[in-house]
Formats: sequence, structure tokens, C-alpha cells
Amino acid sequence: MSKSFDDLLAKVSTCSKKKLAVAVAQDKPVLEAVKAAKERGIADAILVGDEAEIKKIADEIGMDLADYEVIHEADVQEAALIAVGLVHDKKADMYMKGIIDTKSFLKSILNKERGLRTGRPLSHVAVFDIKGIDHLLFLTDVAFIPYPTLEDKVNIINSTVDVCHACGIDMPKVAPIAAVEVVNPKMPCTVEAAELTKMNEEGQITGCIVDGPLSMDLAIEPEAALHKGATDRKIVGDADVLLFPDIHAGNLVYKVLVHTTEFKNGCILTGTSAPAILTSRSDSFETKVNSIALAAVVADAMAKQN
Amino acid sequence: MSKSFDDLLAKVSTCSKKKLAVAVAQDKPVLEAVKAAKERGIADAILVGDEAEIKKIADEIGMDLADYEVIHEADVQEAALIAVGLVHDKKADMYMKGIIDTKSFLKSILNKERGLRTGRPLSHVAVFDIKGIDHLLFLTDVAFIPYPTLEDKVNIINSTVDVCHACGIDMPKVAPIAAVEVVNPKMPCTVEAAELTKMNEEGQITGCIVDGPLSMDLAIEPEAALHKGATDRKIVGDADVLLFPDIHAGNLVYKVLVHTTEFKNGCILTGTSAPAILTSRSDSFETKVNSIALAAVVADAMAKQN
Repeated sequence: MSKSFDDLLAKVSTCSKKKLAVAVAQDKPVLEAVKAAKERGIADAILVGDEAEIKKIADEIGMDLADYEVIHEADVQEAALIAVGLVHDKKADMYMKGIIDTKSFLKSILNKERGLRTGRPLSHVAVFDIKGIDHLLFLTDVAFIPYPTLEDKVNIINSTVDVCHACGIDMPKVAPIAAVEVVNPKMPCTVEAAELTKMNEEGQITGCIVDGPLSMDLAIEPEAALHKGATDRKIVGDADVLLFPDIHAGNLVYKVLVHTTEFKNGCILTGTSAPAILTSRSDSFETKVNSIALAAVVADAMAKQN
Repeated sequence: MSKSFDDLLAKVSTCSKKKLAVAVAQDKPVLEAVKAAKERGIADAILVGDEAEIKKIADEIGMDLADYEVIHEADVQEAALIAVGLVHDKKADMYMKGIIDTKSFLKSILNKERGLRTGRPLSHVAVFDIKGIDHLLFLTDVAFIPYPTLEDKVNIINSTVDVCHACGIDMPKVAPIAAVEVVNPKMPCTVEAAELTKMNEEGQITGCIVDGPLSMDLAIEPEAALHKGATDRKIVGDADVLLFPDIHAGNLVYKVLVHTTEFKNGCILTGTSAPAILTSRSDSFETKVNSIALAAVVADAMAKQN
């Protein structure tokens, strides 16, 4: 069971070596992360994009292209379709965004012939290893679905629980969180949190324990459950997954963690047939490498299921 | 200008001594905070409640009741009305909740004859001094108004700006925050953030600089503004006030700060004719004392205006 990013990296070393397909790879920060992932034994990569530009950056950062397959395609949209097609055809295990706009990257994922569509909507999970919290926290959805419906939330839980299982967390505790820990008919997210809990009890959401609505303190602080006399709940400060009411709550918490705590983190897209990595310019180098490691662990679990 | 709680406490020592009226004072954690506030020269207090019970707790914690005025009233609702009436009649400067349920405490504040009503709705501000951030952050509303309307947000800004001014921040920067820093018609809070910005530019919201929508990183991280090329904005990582889209976003951020960062904080109710302190069981001793200090600074500013 991975309780930290160090555990996750140790887990990667026990998996068969995975391969990234990078869409429009001529991006320095992305190539730096790809190079580190290779050096640390996390993943190999196929670089799709403008070969001359890739070569130029590789020279700058001391990256030996002899270690990588490079596919030349100067057109951005076509490079993405080639890269995603490699994953679709199982010639690579994970798909990663290079210097292509997010919209076009997602379009390639949703391509009907060569993409990574599944029945589920795309969502996003951010995995945090925070100083002072003794296990990984899976935050979702902090980046993708603005105002998830109840059905979206079921899908988000299912996709995130798959990621938890891949990380060795066999029965993750999922907390649909809100400002309060009791159902308030005037707060729709608390009503939906209770519905998700009921669906879990009735076996419609499986592989996890859902308990909501929960306030943040009851979700992540064991002592708060004691103080509030909430020790009869299924989650008592030991939540693995924080399911946010909407993107604003999720994203604001995500960024406040990034800017005020000591942490390691990694993020992947979910709801895809293979893990996809969509890091942003503001993500640190280590976040990019950790995201590749997280994707490799998830790709390994997917390969074992098929 | 107060940039930390230490500054705020230094500021209190320059004010004339203020007096608390405590509603239903027979509560050990509240009396401990009141005792510390007295000892540190922050505020005196009038204790309204069951005198025998107050005496019993005072003996336990080594509090000399000779230093305080005690008004005996065993009935909870009546004790609150007496305490709030003292503030209404200017015999005390701040109103503090003891062992009375929140609903009854608020009812006393809203009492037409003896309460602390103003034209504005009640709201709440949490003031944070976070390690790594070089100035105070005013978070609002994380506890009170579930889904503020545009009009509520104008009132919340006005009430919070008054608190900033009392703390010596003459032209606070107010960031209506969201998941994104651009207006998206599908995200109502981003549209309202732009409207608040416009109202500020047109002089309908004064005494502050409003700039929104802003993402959390652009609001609190100066480097993020540089990275994102957003240096032409009025707020570049130096927001004083974080205005949240709703109570869930606000409360979840508030609690994640409490549980994962090194901080000092204090909270008061706003929209009242005198500062009111409504701390919760889960607030630490220091948070309660800091809240009294914050209230004292605000009461002093109010007294100077009248």
C-alpha cells in the first residue's frame, strides 16, 4: 500500500517498464521530466513532434535521443493523433501532453478511432503527500468538471477508486466533503453526499467506503472526530479520497495546499482507457516526474486487469 | 499596518482598554480565553450567566472574579439579551458567545431593541497569519452565508474592508477568487467577480481595490503572476482579502489551512454595530484570544468613527 510518493516510486520499480507517448514533445520542461523519468527507471518514452526542435532542446538539457524513439511530425494536431494512437494500439502505455493547447490534447483523447475514450467522462485526480498527514490524499475533481452532477460524482468516484486500487489502497475511504457534516436540504451537495453514501451501502458504488457529507476536519483530522463525538462514522479523519462539491472548492483547496504546505504531488486524467498526463506550466519539475510515476502504476494495474 | 498577529496585538496595546460582554459565560474554554485576554491587557470583561457555575469554573482555572463584573442570570436566552444589551448601550465594546447555541446567540444579535443590527447582513471574517505569507489574509465568508448573491458579496466586501481598515490596511486588495482567472459565462461566480471589479472601478465599492476573478495562485503567490504573465493585473499575488464563491469553497480552504499549515488566526462576525465573537469548540485557545484582540482593534476603530 502506497502511503507516500516514496512508496509509489518504490512500487513503480516492481512493475514492468512502461512507455510514455508524448504529444508535441518539443517542450523543455516536459522533456526534462521525461529524461528524469527515464534516468530514474520510471518510464521510457516515444517522442512525437518536430524532430529538429526536439533535438535542439535535447542538446540543451543533455538528453541522449539514442535512448528514445522519435517520430517526426511537425503538425501539432497530427502529432497528437499519432501519439495517442500509439497508446490506443498498446505500443505505449501512457499519454502525455507536450507543447499543445489543452483543448487540442483533450480532443485527441476523445478521438473516436485513435483516442482513449471509455464510457466514463474525463475527470482528474491530484494525489498529495502532505507533511503531517500519514497517507496519500486523492483530491478530485479540482481541474476538470466544473459542476459535477450526481451521476458525474459516481463516475468520478469510480475512476478515482481505480487509481487508489492501483496504488495498493484496497478499500479507500471516500469523503464527499462540504462546509458541514450534516445533510442540509438547502445545500444540494450535502444531499448528494448522503445519496452517494447510500449508493455505496446498497452496492451501487463498490470497492470503497463512502461517508458523507463530511467537513474537512472530520475527513482529515482524526482528533476532530473525537472532539465532535463523531467516532461512530465510517470515516474518522482517515479519508483517502476528498470528493469536492465543485471545481471552485476543489481548485482553491488544491492551490492553497500547493502554496502553503510542504508536499509532493502528482496528477493524472481519469476516465480514459490508459493514463493521461496533463501537467501545467505552473507544475514543478518534481510534480511532472511524480505524475509520470503515478501514471505508470495505474498503467500497470490496467495491464494486469486486461 | 498589521502584517501579523503580533502586529495586531501590539496595536491593541495602543488602544484604550476595551470591554467584552460574554453571553452565558459558564464555559471553561471561553473563560480561559477571557482570563488570558485580561492578563495580556487585551480586554476586560463582564460575565453574564449562572454565577455559581461561573464561580466554580473560575476556581478551577485560577481566575479571580474580583477583576470582573459578574451579572447573574440563570436563563440562557435572557443572559444573552442582557449581555448583548450591554454592548448595545455602550457599557461594553464587544459581544462574545459563551455556552449558548449559535442560533440563540445570533437571535440575540438580531434583537430589534437590544441587539447589534445594522443595515448589512451578518457575515464572518477569518484572519490568518500563515507561515510563508508576509501579510495577513482575510478569508470571507467561510462560515455564515451559504450561497452569497452579488448584493451579499458587496456587503461582505464592505464589512471586511472595515475590518482591514481597523487593522491599519488602508487600501486592502480584495480578490473574488475562483478556479480560474478569466470570466467564464458558465461559471456564475466568475461573472460576479468581474461585476464586483467593475463596481469598484466605478466607485460603488470604495476603500479597497477589487480585482477578480482570480485563481488562488494569482491571488496569493507573487511568482505565479510572473509565470502566467499576469503582471498587469491590480492584484499580483498580494491579495489581502480572499472572497470565496460560496461557503463550501471558503470553509474547506479555511479548514485545510488550519489542519496543514503553521498559522495564527482569529475570527469575528461582521455586519454588526459592534464586533461579535463566535468561536467554536474546535478553535484553539490562541484562536479565541486572537479573536478577542481582533475584536478589540475593530471596536477601537468603530469608536473613533462615532
